[in-house]
Amino acid sequence: MFKRFASTSAALRPTIRQILSLQPKNENVQVNGWVKSIRVQKRVAFAMIHDGTSAQSLQAVFSDPKLAHSLTNGASVRLTGRLSESRGAGQEKELQVESVDVLGACDPEEYPIQKQTMSAEYLRDRVHLRTRTNTASSVLRLRDQTMRSLHDYFSQNDFCYAHTPIITSSDAEGAGETFRIAPVTTGTPPQTHEFFSQPSYLTVSSQLHLEALASSVSRVWTLSPCFRAERSQTNRHLAEFWMLEAEWAFTRDLADICQVVEDSLKDVLRNDSPDRDALWSDLSGPKLDMLTAAALRKPWTQMSYSDAIRELVKHHTESGQFKYKPQWGHGLQSEHERWISEQLVGGPVFVTDYPAAIKPFYMRLNDDGQTVACFDLLVPFVGELVGGSLREERIEILKQSLEKHQLDQNAYGWYLDLRKYGGAPHGGFGMGFERLISWVGGVENVRECIPMPRWAGRMLL
Amino acid sequence: MFKRFASTSAALRPTIRQILSLQPKNENVQVNGWVKSIRVQKRVAFAMIHDGTSAQSLQAVFSDPKLAHSLTNGASVRLTGRLSESRGAGQEKELQVESVDVLGACDPEEYPIQKQTMSAEYLRDRVHLRTRTNTASSVLRLRDQTMRSLHDYFSQNDFCYAHTPIITSSDAEGAGETFRIAPVTTGTPPQTHEFFSQPSYLTVSSQLHLEALASSVSRVWTLSPCFRAERSQTNRHLAEFWMLEAEWAFTRDLADICQVVEDSLKDVLRNDSPDRDALWSDLSGPKLDMLTAAALRKPWTQMSYSDAIRELVKHHTESGQFKYKPQWGHGLQSEHERWISEQLVGGPVFVTDYPAAIKPFYMRLNDDGQTVACFDLLVPFVGELVGGSLREERIEILKQSLEKHQLDQNAYGWYLDLRKYGGAPHGGFGMGFERLISWVGGVENVRECIPMPRWAGRMLL
Repeated sequence: MFKRFASTSAALRPTIRQILSLQPKNENVQVNGWVKSIRVQKRVAFAMIHDGTSAQSLQAVFSDPKLAHSLTNGASVRLTGRLSESRGAGQEKELQVESVDVLGACDPEEYPIQKQTMSAEYLRDRVHLRTRTNTASSVLRLRDQTMRSLHDYFSQNDFCYAHTPIITSSDAEGAGETFRIAPVTTGTPPQTHEFFSQPSYLTVSSQLHLEALASSVSRVWTLSPCFRAERSQTNRHLAEFWMLEAEWAFTRDLADICQVVEDSLKDVLRNDSPDRDALWSDLSGPKLDMLTAAALRKPWTQMSYSDAIRELVKHHTESGQFKYKPQWGHGLQSEHERWISEQLVGGPVFVTDYPAAIKPFYMRLNDDGQTVACFDLLVPFVGELVGGSLREERIEILKQSLEKHQLDQNAYGWYLDLRKYGGAPHGGFGMGFERLISWVGGVENVRECIPMPRWAGRMLL
Repeated sequence: MFKRFASTSAALRPTIRQILSLQPKNENVQVNGWVKSIRVQKRVAFAMIHDGTSAQSLQAVFSDPKLAHSLTNGASVRLTGRLSESRGAGQEKELQVESVDVLGACDPEEYPIQKQTMSAEYLRDRVHLRTRTNTASSVLRLRDQTMRSLHDYFSQNDFCYAHTPIITSSDAEGAGETFRIAPVTTGTPPQTHEFFSQPSYLTVSSQLHLEALASSVSRVWTLSPCFRAERSQTNRHLAEFWMLEAEWAFTRDLADICQVVEDSLKDVLRNDSPDRDALWSDLSGPKLDMLTAAALRKPWTQMSYSDAIRELVKHHTESGQFKYKPQWGHGLQSEHERWISEQLVGGPVFVTDYPAAIKPFYMRLNDDGQTVACFDLLVPFVGELVGGSLREERIEILKQSLEKHQLDQNAYGWYLDLRKYGGAPHGGFGMGFERLISWVGGVENVRECIPMPRWAGRMLL
């Protein structure tokens, strides 16, 4: 898509990732990084130096152990020396150190990042240092790699990346989980008023805005922060999270929406990611097996909500396993979703065509008059990862739906305009980015899947 | 970086951009899009069909003019026919239409997007339809292309894309231009409290958070929404805007920071962008000449703040041109910035080493004890586009700076920790993304550089 001109800037010194990809030719190199560990013997000392540009560290060898005396874990250093083939096991290359420059000392007695295993909660309390651990820095890089994979997918398919508003006039149908911007005080004497001349909120979804853009440039996507003031403290919820949403025109078939989701996610699963491998290196068993199978299985399972309910009812009758009784017309509980994907299917599954009454007003009504052309993608160990639908493009049916959902038509005048002036059949989906990272990286809790998590009662930095 | 697997999804039909890149071989194609214009003659009719995937439209030829009778401007259509070499001037290919399917009609009497020129203000009032114009859709795609160019640059140089918090505990040094999240009301009887157990605000910059991440993975960048509740109504300010920020460790030289800015922006200027060309096609003269020169000039000019003041004072003494008298120790006014870049330099210019007293607490103090190692990049017709600096890594000097700026050390404990535990020399910069689009695209006002602009008193959708 782009002609490439400059590549690496001369103003940026080689990183450890770049140095490790060099052929060792006894070249003189300068290495900047932090000391990860240190081992001093009588005649030689070793230190692992990392700079966070990859999951790998570089082994530094000090033929004079005195050279290493000033090093401590966590200190930042500049080492110069020769890059050579390693004589030891465990790494291909090592640095024969000739000089040491400690840029920033680190008192090992006080340093909060210790070598022994630290609990997730301990690290959340020290979130400004958390990415100094292997796991947290791998997750950070995995986010970058995953985003890049998705960006490639959407670009190749002519989707335009669009930045949708964060502050909106919509209170998300008054669901009560919307953050509100406080009015501002100005003037003498001070007066309080709405900065935007009307109440304003933090967005819960970019979808409606993306629909406006898809009505002119056909295909759009975004990765945008979303906000929910919800108090539930689960391993799948954050008050501030990132959502990938895509929306496109000229599609009439729900299966096509599912296909785009599946294709883009299979790219993510199949693309090389040393950090994903690093995260999985501690793990094994059914979680990893199911993830690998998902990357290869073609196509992913699809089943209707009605069929899913039938299976759930059957299983519940036989086993009495569920806390909540599955029932047509009710939403699927988390325990139902996980049973379907983990037990019934053993992989990702698109559950389609939910009852209209339990879904938002904008989903396209099916010919049965009861269900809408929508899906949830359920994946093992995470549950709902993606939700999508065809959108109702027929203006009269959309107006009826607004009425059924007790929404004010006037507030949606602009949304109806999109149908009034050359409306096209269209659809799209939304995917929680932290849930995706949780699934792909095998990370238990979404609080570890975002650099600085926020939830009810909790906001550090 | 990534091994590529899937490319174009079978679930997505060819776009007009893709169809226009095909060799015409009398192939049968299906074209989805909106009618841009229509011209009916006695024996033939023509329509321009566009779908927003590029700045180009496809000419549809109706050998039977009756086929075109149901078409109106703005209607969405599905046409099938044969793609052939165009016999007319102005386009290489055209579609010989065989069948027409109007997907969504558009009443030309009511359609707000008319062919005659519409004012910027008229379109801002109809922002949900604005990207249906050529200019607004080119700007939307230019944002995407610019972001992708920058993403490529940073990836190639081992920068990790990081999502920093939008909601923060920092009120940006109490500057009073920070949006505050309203406390929430819950419970019976209802009680009001802070959702995060402390006052929370919308971020004005990701820099401090990026510094924490750069202290572990060396190189990070983000393109993140930022918010300023400022009431100034200029063509360079928005209440909600996107800011590109990059931060990296192991750099000691301000010139290196400038170099990274210059390299990344030269990529943006030199990479192919048909949409940038389309935006410039109406424009010419000194604006475009200076932009082109900037792409080629190597290196961009650097001058110290003190030298800049000297030149400004000299010019002011000779001409009396400025409203505000230039004076050492005071900030540069917009008129000063534009004179320096447009008149004195005639291109981008890095102004470096401002007085410490007029800059934020975190900038690195120079050896003179008076100035800090910082720069503003000024560009013609926009003014300040980028601001950056080395950050103060010496903990004692940083503490003094906090004190001088009357900031509470306790609130910055985590920030001091970054220096305490293996701190490394580091620096970075921030760039307003809408200002960049304004400069690169030659767009007068940043309100036209973001899909759905927000400013004081104004928030549509």
